[in-house]
Order: sequence, then C-alpha cells, then structure tokens
Amino acid sequence: MTSYQPVMDVAELQAFLIAAFPEHGKGEGVGGTLIEDVSPGVVRARLIYGDHHLRPGGTISGPTMMGLADHVMYALVLAHIGPVALAVTTNLNINFLRKPAPADLIAEARFVKLGRRLAVGEVHIFGGDEKMVAQVSCTYSIPPK
Amino acid sequence: MTSYQPVMDVAELQAFLIAAFPEHGKGEGVGGTLIEDVSPGVVRARLIYGDHHLRPGGTISGPTMMGLADHVMYALVLAHIGPVALAVTTNLNINFLRKPAPADLIAEARFVKLGRRLAVGEVHIFGGDEKMVAQVSCTYSIPPK
Amino acid sequence: MTSYQPVMDVAELQAFLIAAFPEHGKGEGVGGTLIEDVSPGVVRARLIYGDHHLRPGGTISGPTMMGLADHVMYALVLAHIGPVALAVTTNLNINFLRKPAPADLIAEARFVKLGRRLAVGEVHIFGGDEKMVAQVSCTYSIPPK
Amino acid sequence: MTSYQPVMDVAELQAFLIAAFPEHGKGEGVGGTLIEDVSPGVVRARLIYGDHHLRPGGTISGPTMMGLADHVMYALVLAHIGPVALAVTTNLNINFLRKPAPADLIAEARFVKLGRRLAVGEVHIFGGDEKMVAQVSCTYSIPPK
Repeated sequence: MTSYQPVMDVAELQAFLIAAFPEHGKGEGVGGTLIEDVSPGVVRARLIYGDHHLRPGGTISGPTMMGLADHVMYALVLAHIGPVALAVTTNLNINFLRKPAPADLIAEARFVKLGRRLAVGEVHIFGGDEKMVAQVSCTYSIPPK
Repeated sequence: MTSYQPVMDVAELQAFLIAAFPEHGKGEGVGGTLIEDVSPGVVRARLIYGDHHLRPGGTISGPTMMGLADHVMYALVLAHIGPVALAVTTNLNINFLRKPAPADLIAEARFVKLGRRLAVGEVHIFGGDEKMVAQVSCTYSIPPK
Repeated sequence: MTSYQPVMDVAELQAFLIAAFPEHGKGEGVGGTLIEDVSPGVVRARLIYGDHHLRPGGTISGPTMMGLADHVMYALVLAHIGPVALAVTTNLNINFLRKPAPADLIAEARFVKLGRRLAVGEVHIFGGDEKMVAQVSCTYSIPPK
Repeated sequence: MTSYQPVMDVAELQAFLIAAFPEHGKGEGVGGTLIEDVSPGVVRARLIYGDHHLRPGGTISGPTMMGLADHVMYALVLAHIGPVALAVTTNLNINFLRKPAPADLIAEARFVKLGRRLAVGEVHIFGGDEKMVAQVSCTYSIPPK
C-alpha cells in the first residue's frame, strides 16, 4: 500500500475550485460541484443537478459525467499536491454503465498512483439510486516545480 | 475496405441536431456546432468558440473537447443509420495532445466499424493552427430496431 | 450496491481454464495462472513468473500484464455466468504504473457492472512488492443464450 | 500538419528488434513480426501466424493483438527517435472489432503526436481478409536523454 497525505481540507479545496472554475464553483447552486469529503488518496464530490444536464430521452448527458469526472480528479490531485501547480489531463477513459435519472450525481476519485510526473486515478460516478453510472480512469500530467 | 453509405446530408443532419441538442444546435452562434461535411464513413464539424469554453490558463477546456468528440461521433452514427435510433455512448477514450488556443475547433469523426450492435470510431480534433489537439476513440451502442 | 453471486468455485474455475487455455492453464507451473480466490463480484489470481515474461531492461513486459488482465477478467465473467458462454473482450484500457521486477504478479478483477449484454470490470495488478503496477478497465460482450 | 522524419530504415529497425525481442524477432519464422514499411510518421508490420496465437473458438487471441499493437508502436517510436532510448508504454486502449481468422495480421501504427516526453499513436490491425480487426491508441513515455 502506498500512503497518500492530503495537504488541503474540504473548505480550502472548495474555495480554490470556486475561484478557478466559475461554472463548477457555484457551490450549492444548480450546476455547482460540492466537495463532500477529502481523505488520504480519495476525494468525493456532488454535482448539483440542473435541467441543462439532460440529453434527449431525459437522462443526464455523457459530457456532464465526463466533465464531472475530470473535475473531481483535478480536485484529488490538487488536494494532495497543493493549489499551485497547473496540472493538465493527458488521458481519460470512461465506460458509461447506466443512464442516470435527473438527480444529483456523486463522484468518488481515488489514486492508483501519484508520481512526480503523472497521477493516475479511478473515478466512480453514482446516480440518485446509488448505482454506479460511469467508471473512469484518468491521467494528469504534473508540471515540474 | 468496408464501404459506408450516409443516409442524411449536411442540412438534414444539422436540422436534426439543432432540434435535439439546443446547446450544440445554435448553428452559427457562439457555442454552436456546425456540421461542415458528411461523406462515406466520415463527418466533419466546427465548434464555434466562446469564452465559456476556457479553463484556467486561457486555453480551451478538456470537457469542451470531450463534449465535441461525443457529439460529432453521434452525428456520424446518425448520418449513417438515420435519425430514428436512440444510440448511446458506451466508451470514450481521449488523449489530450496540446492545449488549444481560444479559437474554433474542427472535429473529424471516422468509423473503424459500423456493426449492428456497436459503432466504433476515431475522432481527431484540430485547433485554430490546424494542429491536432486531441485524439479520441468512441463506441456507441445501437439499440435494436 | 449491486449484489453479485458466483456460480463456480476456485476449483471449478481453475479446471475449466486449464482445459480452455493451455498456456495459462499450467496451474502451478511456470507461466501458469493460478486462481486464488472467488468471491461475490471479485476474482483474484496469481501469474507464476517465468523468464519469458521479461522485456529489455529486465522487467515484466506490457503484453504479459495485458494478457493477465484479460484472462482474469474472463475468469471473473465465467465465475458469475457459468462456463458455457463464449464471451469476448470488446475494449481494454490499461495504465502502466510501475515496471514490475521479476516475480509473480497478482491480479484482482472486480465488476463495476454485470449486465445481460456487457460486463465491465476493473483489474488491478500488483508486483512482488505488493505495489500496484497496472490499472485496467475491460469490457466483455456476453452472447445471447 | 506536423512533419515526422524517420531516422532508421526497415533493415535497421528489423535488426534492432530481432536483437531486443527474441520472441518477436524471429523475422520470417512463425510468431515473428516482420517490419514491412517505414515512412514519415508510420510503420507497418506483419505478424507471422502460428497456432499458439489461437484462443478457444479458433480465432486469434486478444493478447496476441495487444502484444502486436504495443510492439509496432514501439517500432514506430524507435524508427523516429533512434534505437537508444528505453521508451515505455504508459497507456494502451484497444477496441476489438472482429475475430480474426487464423492468418497473418497486418498492423499499421501512425503518430498523432511525437513530443519530447510523450508519443501518442493509433494502431490499426487488419486480418487476412484485409478488414480491420482492432483499433488501438497507445502512449509511450520517452525518457530524458
């Protein structure tokens, strides 16, 4: 087991993300992403549902889930390396498992590796009924300090 | 070589997408996705740049590219099977290659397979300087008729 | 939470795999893959190390890990749907995290979804020092009965 | 368009690979991988079919195709940066499209990006009937000189 140690707590992480990403940073407002928990190697967040998340057929769209996964993975990286670095996604792979009904989504991001140059994680997204709706793996490139 | 035969032309495809996806369907307006070409096995589209596409650092965000890739792959499937079916993405893999400057993006989607149950394609996204900024592979599940 | 229920135990699964895959099925011999545990939604297996697994530089090769991931995911599917169906991989995504030293590898496969048509899982591969060396997601298509 | 310039020709590349990878390097023998063409940004190779490539059902196995894709992508990288560097795969994504009949496979690898730190390419694998049987994207990490 590798041990991970967060360097930002929920409030610090939320404040940083609200400043950096206005669209996610609405906090509790519709369309905002709320950080719910930060623990070693894991960040959990909630996407506040809004009608603009829907696709034809009345379920939450794929791009909504992809954006959420990328955002929560970014939050996971920042929570562990601090708010300075400008990390960028290099690869994201998503499997869509079920069509999510209109409701808040929960995303849980977990490191499988945090290296000096690359961070790799898995993100699981759950719908309102607590079933997994998407499985994601994601790689962030970490710039040299 | 497999031969593909489109069943919708540019105007039909654009009209269908505008009706189904208000956010992409603004046509020539900011944030809209314009279908530029439909040919056997290939659809090319343009995303009209808007400031809401930016991420911190002033380049176009990952979720913008993921949403564009998914949308153009959907357009490719519909162009070849017709506007009836409710196809859904099952897998999307994206490699981010360069940070795109603020400008329109061009996305070109191409089948590698169009089967009865699954359609698999590659999407290449190009920035304003015509360099490739993202490489995507994407699978759509096609519902039984 | 979805509940999964295996229909084959370790001995039955091992016997089936030995018969179907001679190269993996050497059991305890070099190059064989030993099923170590079957539990609801999870299968764990051990690849018995052999020198033919090495790549230049003296670490275990990527294709060895890809083959192991695919095999253990197949074992997971069979353990839960029975030995009849001829399931086939449709997508596999692997992130290589560390170069594994010459030693047995442990692979743990876990469902994120077991549907009627598609099974999706994650596979984590660990090296001799118990650190994760590869992270995999894998989709199997399940043929109609 | 980015321009790529190979620094090794077919014979040099083949000789290097035979020395480095005994199992692929059998040249024209069964199980060998023959480099057929090197051109700017592209390498094409042929896997000489052998019965050990089969899976249950009598078609060529997934791990055979994954190993071939990885190998030809490695050849593509070396052909353009020279035989010195110890490049390693960091991500490989494969979509299996059709079950290949027992016959030689052709793999064509093509850069979508060759950067200083990362090389990203697409690999298309074709079966004996010239239909595409697998689509791959692959990232190699290039060590500092």
